Amino acid sequence: MNSTYRPDPKLDLSFERIVDVPRELVWKAWTSPEHIKQWFTPAPWKTIDCEIDLRPGGIFRTVMLSPEGQEFPNAGCYPEVRENEKLAWTNALAPGFRPASSSAVKTEETGNFFFTAMIALADHGSGTKYTATVIHADEASCKTHADMGFEDGWGKALDQLVELAKRM
Amino acid sequence: MNSTYRPDPKLDLSFERIVDVPRELVWKAWTSPEHIKQWFTPAPWKTIDCEIDLRPGGIFRTVMLSPEGQEFPNAGCYPEVRENEKLAWTNALAPGFRPASSSAVKTEETGNFFFTAMIALADHGSGTKYTATVIHADEASCKTHADMGFEDGWGKALDQLVELAKRM
Repeated sequence: MNSTYRPDPKLDLSFERIVDVPRELVWKAWTSPEHIKQWFTPAPWKTIDCEIDLRPGGIFRTVMLSPEGQEFPNAGCYPEVRENEKLAWTNALAPGFRPASSSAVKTEETGNFFFTAMIALADHGSGTKYTATVIHADEASCKTHADMGFEDGWGKALDQLVELAKRM
Repeated sequence: MNSTYRPDPKLDLSFERIVDVPRELVWKAWTSPEHIKQWFTPAPWKTIDCEIDLRPGGIFRTVMLSPEGQEFPNAGCYPEVRENEKLAWTNALAPGFRPASSSAVKTEETGNFFFTAMIALADHGSGTKYTATVIHADEASCKTHADMGFEDGWGKALDQLVELAKRM
């Protein structure tokens, strides 16, 4: 789909930032397990494991660790991979495009919900216009995600990504 | 993913047939709304409407009509489109890769379930090796689909496709 996707305010969460690192480095940070582990979760959360098979239908799996020591595994796949330009991943499809188990949809009990995240990258001077959009099935999932602190969390993670990219 | 996908017998339904029409015609029959309406549902079922946006994330929507006159709308998207070679579509993602609403997962009440269908085409002499594989989230969905007569239904539809292709 277009990288100029226009979010639906009831169903989507989105933020846009200009960052002063080239998009090739942002892409690298998003597509290597070693890099993901260094920036993906805002401290003091950690990402302690990551698996990436960077092709449509390939796995994107992470294990996050809460400050209290609880592990949160997430597995999904990439529906779309356009190098240095657009990366989409979803937990609604398991690797190989297999529908995720419906037992994962327990919004009220566990806070789990399906979403598709899209990262769009465009040149902006010597830096990058970075647009993250997360789309949901329904308003309830979107609100749950917003209440979890989507923008703050993704923003802090992006700060960590930029810091890492500058050291690359 | 590979077109030589090996099905999981507990989660997947699959059948392979050699058909005596070239794969370019099979592809056309699968990717044009006018053609879909002519072969997609085994008679006396009909497909009375179809919408196709043939790109990753693009819509694949059909409306089937039962012999009793009940309409069954289905909408999903294509996670993968490789011309004349591989077509994948799923009802687990709405157009634009948006996760489908979880209210669509009502296996027991409505027989609805999520699946991803993959059509793989390969040359076989002057004809085509046609492999249809439908993958599910869990064994229950797979069994429901099998009990609905997957192989018989998809086989009859393929007969109709071949008949149409020969008239193209």
